[in-house]
Amino acid sequence: MRSEKEKELENYIQEYQTKVTLKKNSIPKFLSIEVADYILNNGKIITREKVKKSGKDGNAVIILPITKDQEVILAVEPRVCTKETVGIGLPAGYIEEGETPIIAAKRELQEETGYQAEELQVLGTGFYQDEGCSSAYNTIVLATGCIRVSNQMLDDSEFIHYFLCSVAEAYEMLDNGVIKSANSQLALWKAKEFLKKK
Amino acid sequence: MRSEKEKELENYIQEYQTKVTLKKNSIPKFLSIEVADYILNNGKIITREKVKKSGKDGNAVIILPITKDQEVILAVEPRVCTKETVGIGLPAGYIEEGETPIIAAKRELQEETGYQAEELQVLGTGFYQDEGCSSAYNTIVLATGCIRVSNQMLDDSEFIHYFLCSVAEAYEMLDNGVIKSANSQLALWKAKEFLKKK
Repeated sequence: MRSEKEKELENYIQEYQTKVTLKKNSIPKFLSIEVADYILNNGKIITREKVKKSGKDGNAVIILPITKDQEVILAVEPRVCTKETVGIGLPAGYIEEGETPIIAAKRELQEETGYQAEELQVLGTGFYQDEGCSSAYNTIVLATGCIRVSNQMLDDSEFIHYFLCSVAEAYEMLDNGVIKSANSQLALWKAKEFLKKK
Repeated sequence: MRSEKEKELENYIQEYQTKVTLKKNSIPKFLSIEVADYILNNGKIITREKVKKSGKDGNAVIILPITKDQEVILAVEPRVCTKETVGIGLPAGYIEEGETPIIAAKRELQEETGYQAEELQVLGTGFYQDEGCSSAYNTIVLATGCIRVSNQMLDDSEFIHYFLCSVAEAYEMLDNGVIKSANSQLALWKAKEFLKKK
């Protein structure tokens, strides 16, 4: 990666790293767990637990945005559950009631980066984020011809730096494990053949 | 896919489909949620919720097993959280205390299929299953030269049919979306270049 890009990324990471963790005994507001028994066609009964997000399945869209100048837009944000405490990956977000993945991708891309795409397309088939304990079904959207049209529009609890890099630099970060989320890795793998053709 | 293989798969799916779902108000035994405040380096405080599995991170190993005859071993099992209620994917399991991913892969492969591998190798870098709300860090293990050495060794609550198919048939199921889990899709993508060389 270009050294000025390495420095930029390092600054974002340092800013978002977790300094102190304060465990709480409060009731979760976002996540909940549902328990059920399931009778299978073969007559067996199994008990399973399911994670819900805001009471819903938590279907998400993962966006692979490419600018007019053929740069990839990555998102750097606090990921407090991970060992690194900061994640480098693709912009993503939950699909809201009544939204298609494409509509959700448009909205999330502009909220997280301020960019709008000329063209958006669903890439390959969808996938379950964690099929053993969640119904979340995710979709990858490739967003090409992106240009910056506004500032980011983040919630109070959201911290995101977007980060522009070349396609080659993004795949370097996939190969060397800097990009560590299942969603982002899968999106980059699925887009690889498509992007190579360009 | 060969028609006899299609029929075999269809039988497994039918057997494991959910017939009845009985929601319960009982306390979850497997999943739990931890709430914490995090102070970032930039001084901001964020609250996040984390899913734990059996009180632990839930790190898993995903195994891509190839038999001595160059067939892929898939696992068909009830996936009650999904729309299809049955999942077709790769054998996988949680990494137990003190296990390396390779050791866990060996154990899980034999438990779920009765097969043992001649050679096991970690494939590419690991990944977070759902980095926004979980610490689960998964590893993909390619298991080659597999031969059947025993019966399956399943828990009372586990139902798994293993399913042998050609490498081409496995990638057909990836491409047409029959294989729907993030873990299995990612493993097949990461192994693609490797398997093509063979």
